[in-house]
Amino acid sequence: MVDTVRLETAKEIIDAAEQRAQEIDNPMVITVANSEGNLVAQHRMDGAWLASVDISRNKAYTAAALDMPTDELADPTRPGESLYGLQNTNQGRMVIFGGGYPLMRDGDVVGSIGVSGGAVEQDMDVAESGVDRFDELSS
Amino acid sequence: MVDTVRLETAKEIIDAAEQRAQEIDNPMVITVANSEGNLVAQHRMDGAWLASVDISRNKAYTAAALDMPTDELADPTRPGESLYGLQNTNQGRMVIFGGGYPLMRDGDVVGSIGVSGGAVEQDMDVAESGVDRFDELSS
Amino acid sequence: MVDTVRLETAKEIIDAAEQRAQEIDNPMVITVANSEGNLVAQHRMDGAWLASVDISRNKAYTAAALDMPTDELADPTRPGESLYGLQNTNQGRMVIFGGGYPLMRDGDVVGSIGVSGGAVEQDMDVAESGVDRFDELSS
Amino acid sequence: MVDTVRLETAKEIIDAAEQRAQEIDNPMVITVANSEGNLVAQHRMDGAWLASVDISRNKAYTAAALDMPTDELADPTRPGESLYGLQNTNQGRMVIFGGGYPLMRDGDVVGSIGVSGGAVEQDMDVAESGVDRFDELSS
Repeated sequence: MVDTVRLETAKEIIDAAEQRAQEIDNPMVITVANSEGNLVAQHRMDGAWLASVDISRNKAYTAAALDMPTDELADPTRPGESLYGLQNTNQGRMVIFGGGYPLMRDGDVVGSIGVSGGAVEQDMDVAESGVDRFDELSS
Repeated sequence: MVDTVRLETAKEIIDAAEQRAQEIDNPMVITVANSEGNLVAQHRMDGAWLASVDISRNKAYTAAALDMPTDELADPTRPGESLYGLQNTNQGRMVIFGGGYPLMRDGDVVGSIGVSGGAVEQDMDVAESGVDRFDELSS
Repeated sequence: MVDTVRLETAKEIIDAAEQRAQEIDNPMVITVANSEGNLVAQHRMDGAWLASVDISRNKAYTAAALDMPTDELADPTRPGESLYGLQNTNQGRMVIFGGGYPLMRDGDVVGSIGVSGGAVEQDMDVAESGVDRFDELSS
Repeated sequence: MVDTVRLETAKEIIDAAEQRAQEIDNPMVITVANSEGNLVAQHRMDGAWLASVDISRNKAYTAAALDMPTDELADPTRPGESLYGLQNTNQGRMVIFGGGYPLMRDGDVVGSIGVSGGAVEQDMDVAESGVDRFDELSS
């Protein structure tokens, strides 16, 4: 088994993210994945976009698959930049805008979170609440 | 069961769109989907592009999956903009140019229409005839 | 352009099939495709299975792609029979049970119909109403 | 908007199923979908098979897409039976063994549950705990 967030932890992360989503009044889809990018838990809040089911899952996948936040992919994947075309790899699972974050413990990626449902700023805001909760639980 | 446009309504919407397509002499493919982006009815007018069979269906999917007209996606998905990369999500079903519209009733999305077959302006023109017919039937 | 059923004809075929589906009180998804297996028109009756959206379309595809009724594929695709494995070809679009029929004019396939939504017997019954209507219109 | 299980209800359904999975000491993946087969919530219990992430989701999809428990598909899809080949439709999303159930309210399918992680009997046992919880909440 992959050293990864457990379901119990994933639920706490998602709860924190859902709470933040409610505060900003923006229903979201929230996914926690393990360090191999595979699903631990996913929730679609009532009224969240259908498109976000796929995007949330794949932001989590991308963050785990590249060990980095997805917002860092926006610039290098533009035409003419060094990673242009990355978005077409991995059978369309790469998401190159913000809302996906690795979950780190002692310098290792042990999972990831992906949030989709609003503008990119809102997605990042809500995902960061989940990351913060994870850091709290890990400390 | 989905609270959504019924087949009878979808036929009327498509009839109105077909009539407009004939007026502007541009054969179209027209799809009506339900609020979860699944097909209710699709017609390919004689002589309409084969490529439009896929595009029409996916414009309807996109409009339902994001609760917004597809023409609003053109700008934010350009390189350097906030949703660049959205077009690579949802297994290639996202269409980011005009011709897809949600169908709204009392503020809720209950379905969508997607039209393809001409220039984007023509697609939007014909799709709007369908939306107008839906609004007429709902009022 | 492919010599094929026109949209006007497809609507009449689908109307006849819908009427039969109502008589036997079984909501169906009905697709008419052209001789190349591409969609002319598809209707999902209220309450018809979601799974039938895919199956109906692909029964029409299969009937056009092999110039034969889909029920004739059930036996030869059984393990040990000559076409075992056919169901895994064409990117999963081959349907090997009844409900798909070619539409023939003067010995040529000019289109196809695919019906899904009930037991195979009901699918075939409803599809045959569509074929009968087509033959009537062609004579 | 889909008339369907809400996230709050989905969490309660999944909790009940998780509890049953713990009682029989068999980690499971549990998915609740809406009436159009799209995800509401999915949890992978610690130690549950990776393969079950896909299977659980698609059992839920199948039960919603055909309005029936997936165990009822095992017999009719055998070689020589009437629905042989159904398992190849819907882009590989059809699961034809037990563990998927529709969630019914007043005779309408309003969602579904899919459970995977053990022998089919265990999957069905755990899924039924979820269905029972849903029925309790709806009454």
